[in-house]
Amino acid sequence: MGDTKISVLGLGAMGSALARAWLVAGYEVTVWNRTVSRAELLAAEGAKVAVTAREAVAVGDLVVVCLLDDVSVGEVLDGAELGGKDLVNVTTGVPGEARERAEWAVGRGARYLDGGIMAVPPMIGVQGSGAYVFYSGSSELFAAWGDVLAVPAAIRFVGEDPGLAALYDVALLSAMTGMFAGVSHAFALMRRTQVAPEGFAALLVEWLTGMAPYANGVAAQLETGDYTLGVTSNLAMMVEANGTLLRTAEEQGVSPELISPFMALMERRLADGHGDEGTTGVIDLLLR
Amino acid sequence: MGDTKISVLGLGAMGSALARAWLVAGYEVTVWNRTVSRAELLAAEGAKVAVTAREAVAVGDLVVVCLLDDVSVGEVLDGAELGGKDLVNVTTGVPGEARERAEWAVGRGARYLDGGIMAVPPMIGVQGSGAYVFYSGSSELFAAWGDVLAVPAAIRFVGEDPGLAALYDVALLSAMTGMFAGVSHAFALMRRTQVAPEGFAALLVEWLTGMAPYANGVAAQLETGDYTLGVTSNLAMMVEANGTLLRTAEEQGVSPELISPFMALMERRLADGHGDEGTTGVIDLLLR
Ligand SMILES: NC(=O)c1ccc[n+]([C@@H]2O[C@H](COP(=O)([O-])OP(=O)(O)OC[C@H]3O[C@@H](n4cnc5c(N)ncnc54)[C@H](OP(=O)(O)O)[C@@H]3O)[C@@H](O)[C@H]2O)c1
Ligand SMILES: NC(=O)c1ccc[n+]([C@@H]2O[C@H](COP(=O)([O-])OP(=O)(O)OC[C@H]3O[C@@H](n4cnc5c(N)ncnc54)[C@H](OP(=O)(O)O)[C@@H]3O)[C@@H](O)[C@H]2O)c1
Repeated sequence: MGDTKISVLGLGAMGSALARAWLVAGYEVTVWNRTVSRAELLAAEGAKVAVTAREAVAVGDLVVVCLLDDVSVGEVLDGAELGGKDLVNVTTGVPGEARERAEWAVGRGARYLDGGIMAVPPMIGVQGSGAYVFYSGSSELFAAWGDVLAVPAAIRFVGEDPGLAALYDVALLSAMTGMFAGVSHAFALMRRTQVAPEGFAALLVEWLTGMAPYANGVAAQLETGDYTLGVTSNLAMMVEANGTLLRTAEEQGVSPELISPFMALMERRLADGHGDEGTTGVIDLLLR
Repeated sequence: MGDTKISVLGLGAMGSALARAWLVAGYEVTVWNRTVSRAELLAAEGAKVAVTAREAVAVGDLVVVCLLDDVSVGEVLDGAELGGKDLVNVTTGVPGEARERAEWAVGRGARYLDGGIMAVPPMIGVQGSGAYVFYSGSSELFAAWGDVLAVPAAIRFVGEDPGLAALYDVALLSAMTGMFAGVSHAFALMRRTQVAPEGFAALLVEWLTGMAPYANGVAAQLETGDYTLGVTSNLAMMVEANGTLLRTAEEQGVSPELISPFMALMERRLADGHGDEGTTGVIDLLLR
């Protein structure tokens, strides 16, 4: 690894954590950041500091970009010589941006891999933290650099379409948003009782962990197209139960706004005559 | 257990499963159901069949009621002699109904325990299925009958307020509703790709399981009143990320209706100057 040259462009919280993980592992790391002061700490830890982004790209075999957004990536890489480079972009973006950025980079002679980081900076470089990165784009680049990419966090290649890493990333974050919404509603219901939040949270974590595999059942239904497959609580029963959930929210003085949109879709699907299904039909109602 | 007399009123899917679990364990079980044909299967398995609800109540030391809703409980128990009885009502309802039903039963000389069943019928009586029941109300009844109540499913007493079992029950179901909404949105994002639902589901389950302990952090913040406690991704960063989630939904042709209400509350809290917090402040915005 002594002669493997990694360049990291962008030394925010995440870029710094990535650069540090490679430094700690003994790689030669060159860093660049718009605001140069952020490079000083890493220089003290052994990083070389490039004065320009163009220079950072020039010295790297593997060029890792971790900036605010795709616009900043465009600005920073503008004018850099990408021919023959292996470019890994872990800047968060939408799938469409990743695809366009891939085309742009390949057009300039680079191999391109897009990444979606499923971690916060303190998890980077920590064995067993659960941190991982979705990668998509050039499978050749991924094959050549997999060992190096696996240093800061575990790696998961999800396909040649450069947009897939961003899509997987966003899909998981979206699912989490729903879970956090449900958790917020649940705590709100308890807010005016004497119930201690910590004891309740333990039950909530256990319950949600037990219910998460529901997604496997949904997947099996999507794959077979049979939305009644393996259903134990059907839509008719669930819509019935929704009434209890809404009346309880009313009693506890809690706005139903975080749970009612899903209930409304369940009711639409039920009204369409699918009372024997689970909730999978809701997915079709979301598609435009 | 030979001379412990249990009566079960209501032989729908759940009431039948409960009665069967006690029969299998060797208890003397008397059953009653409005539609008498549903009692026949259990009679063949050893249950005694009462002709009237009043009779079923009269022969039971422990009287378990599992009906459609609180209205049916009122109808069925109307005219029954409750003096000296131990009444356990596992019919789903709102906390207010449980409190009124407790007062009503105690006024007629019974001890009252309300239950919220966290399981579907196939899980009842199955060791290790994860099934459990929240109980609240008379701690004396619970102490006296705990061993018997633990036969069909694990037991969790949550307080003397008879409304608490229903409240815990509804709170967990509400949180699950949020999680299912998030899961539905995530699958919708993937619907027009070649990504196999089952592989994606495995990632989703792992991710949601890993993120569920977020609720413990929320609880710690609620208990201390410090909503910045232990925050790694703050509200300002999360609201920034929301833009990526919404633009991705747009690209994939997916309606944002299941995730946008939570985002709107995050934005309100951010606008109120709480960018350094996590999402806990959203809970306060839900309270009326
Ligand atoms: N932090 C996380 O928890 C996390 C998790 C997963 C993914 N990510 C992603 O990782 C990327 C970086 O995140 P971060 O937390 O490191 O962000 P950050 O701490 O805010 O740092 C942003 C970086 O982008 C640079 N930058 C912004 N605009 C620029 C421009 N126009 N030209 C040149 N440089 C520019 C900043 O340079 P200056 O120092 O000069 O401002 C800084 O290096 C983002 O896409 C983020 O979504 C972060
Ligand atoms: N099934 C589940 O997954 C589940 C999970 C947790 C909690 N629960 C709760 O358990 C309770 C029973 O559920 P279930 O699944 O057993 O329901 P079910 O299969 O629909 O059975 C409903 C029962 O209520 C009786 N009933 C309804 N209206 C009545 C009335 N006016 N007078 C007398 N009896 C009446 C029915 O009698 P007939 O046979 O004469 O119609 C039947 O015994 C509900 O409160 C439900 O929320 C169920």
